[in-house]
Amino acid sequence: MIKGARKKVVVIGGGTGNFVVLKGLKSFPLDLTAIVSMADDGGSTGILRDELGVLPPGDVRQCLVALSNSSRLMRSLMNYRFENGGLGGHSFGNLLLSALEKVTGSFEKAVEEASKILNIKGKVIPVTTHQVRLKMVLNNRKVLEGEKEIYLSQEIEHGYKTIYLEPYPKVNPHVIGEISNADLLVIGPGGLHTSLIPNLLVEGVCEAIRKSDARKVFVVNLMNRKGQTSGYKTSSYLKELIRFLGEDVFDHILINVQKPPKHLIDVYSNEGELVENDLNESRVILAELLGGIVEEPKKDFMKRNLIRHDCKKLAQELIKIVDHL
Amino acid sequence: MIKGARKKVVVIGGGTGNFVVLKGLKSFPLDLTAIVSMADDGGSTGILRDELGVLPPGDVRQCLVALSNSSRLMRSLMNYRFENGGLGGHSFGNLLLSALEKVTGSFEKAVEEASKILNIKGKVIPVTTHQVRLKMVLNNRKVLEGEKEIYLSQEIEHGYKTIYLEPYPKVNPHVIGEISNADLLVIGPGGLHTSLIPNLLVEGVCEAIRKSDARKVFVVNLMNRKGQTSGYKTSSYLKELIRFLGEDVFDHILINVQKPPKHLIDVYSNEGELVENDLNESRVILAELLGGIVEEPKKDFMKRNLIRHDCKKLAQELIKIVDHL
Repeated sequence: MIKGARKKVVVIGGGTGNFVVLKGLKSFPLDLTAIVSMADDGGSTGILRDELGVLPPGDVRQCLVALSNSSRLMRSLMNYRFENGGLGGHSFGNLLLSALEKVTGSFEKAVEEASKILNIKGKVIPVTTHQVRLKMVLNNRKVLEGEKEIYLSQEIEHGYKTIYLEPYPKVNPHVIGEISNADLLVIGPGGLHTSLIPNLLVEGVCEAIRKSDARKVFVVNLMNRKGQTSGYKTSSYLKELIRFLGEDVFDHILINVQKPPKHLIDVYSNEGELVENDLNESRVILAELLGGIVEEPKKDFMKRNLIRHDCKKLAQELIKIVDHL
Repeated sequence: MIKGARKKVVVIGGGTGNFVVLKGLKSFPLDLTAIVSMADDGGSTGILRDELGVLPPGDVRQCLVALSNSSRLMRSLMNYRFENGGLGGHSFGNLLLSALEKVTGSFEKAVEEASKILNIKGKVIPVTTHQVRLKMVLNNRKVLEGEKEIYLSQEIEHGYKTIYLEPYPKVNPHVIGEISNADLLVIGPGGLHTSLIPNLLVEGVCEAIRKSDARKVFVVNLMNRKGQTSGYKTSSYLKELIRFLGEDVFDHILINVQKPPKHLIDVYSNEGELVENDLNESRVILAELLGGIVEEPKKDFMKRNLIRHDCKKLAQELIKIVDHL
């Protein structure tokens, strides 16, 4: 890092977790990069992959919106979902990315162009530019095909033999550069098997993370997901990431200690329970990280995130680390 | 008009005809406005009207692209048509306008926002912001419903009793202001019954044209459309417009005299024949206006316009008029 230059923060994940971290960090003078999993195949994204043969736009769209400095209207437009007919369920932002991929002939160029249109701060980079499918072999030998099937499975808590991307993809070369030059690497929060691990399954990513001199932070999820990470404690999440990373790379582990009101925990009882902390090490940072309690959930993905990280509180803790670099 | 100010040119129509005029005039220092018919209900536009209840985006999209100063890529993106699945046939620009209409709650605001995104020169204004359907009662009392049905009909040449918009729409108030303040009004070229006349059927438009001090030019079509305007001469077009306008308002009538090569006329023989000129008045301007002969037609709407106006030649003739104002 050049003295006096902006610190380079690289966020690895995909989906809502990335959104919260990026939105929080956007207002600080940082050099921000989001590395995004390409395993999504559900909903609008899945239909676009199947029908048009494009790369999955959904997670990239969320990161672009998080980093956008354009008008509120443009951000609403990106997340707008058509309600009826053949377009029903598609978000406009997904269509923009898919049409740009067709017109430019490349998903990476499409992301670059969309970044200009949305006037984003920083960069959004797909972890690979190859078409991949996420697969998981359960302990009972059943094979789950696709991120959506894995996301919906209730059997993962009984253990799985392996999880992999098919075909085994080459990393997007820009990703290695970003990780190598980072001052701070943030992994999480996000779906363990569906957002975080899929990045680590790409050739060269784990090695780059291990080799990078960046300070590395793991932001642990707030909630376990029933049938998937039931009964997980903070150490279980850490252990599972280390299994893929090859070693314990983390300098900090950021854990929420704020309790949500009981009625919200009850709302979630069918989906999962709070993650209990069993780590007691000097690198652990305990902080109150919960977002304002929303009684009326907003449309779209926020619906399933009544209990969620507060982007400002999360960013404040990460900035404390950056300030000490 | 304020002395020294840019001349205000208002182009009335919709579809490919408007596109050619606007594209040609774009490079001149003018204050440009396109007034666009809202009667389109075919193809992608028709599906969006039916499924989403939006106003027809197709003709507006063409005008926006014609006036856009954004990159070639953005213009390609606007005209990009999805090829497969539920999105098949939709042009991206139509989806942008429809999503913006949903997000802003108004088609006019949608057009304004799209104008910013595409960095357009001038303004594009829908002639009305009410949902209307174009209808035509033929001499045999058969009723044609919708612009698409009228466009495809082969029976119009036998005459029609009436053509109207249902319900009878109020004009977009901005349209009256634009027409009143214009220095030059350009009507045509364009589908007589499907692009030009639908503008004149909106309450108040003809009166505003009659009252306007603007110099008024009619750009006559190159080709008759079989079953619709078969056998029409330039005077027939003029006569039919006057029927709606209430009086002969035109100061100039711009007519092409360039003959296309015979093999192209043969290609068109199933669709129609060249318009013959039978007007011999001092206000008639005869000029060579044909576009370069394209052997390999481009995708999309250009396919049906191998014989078409050249946007530069057309603009040159119009600019000569503007320069004498």
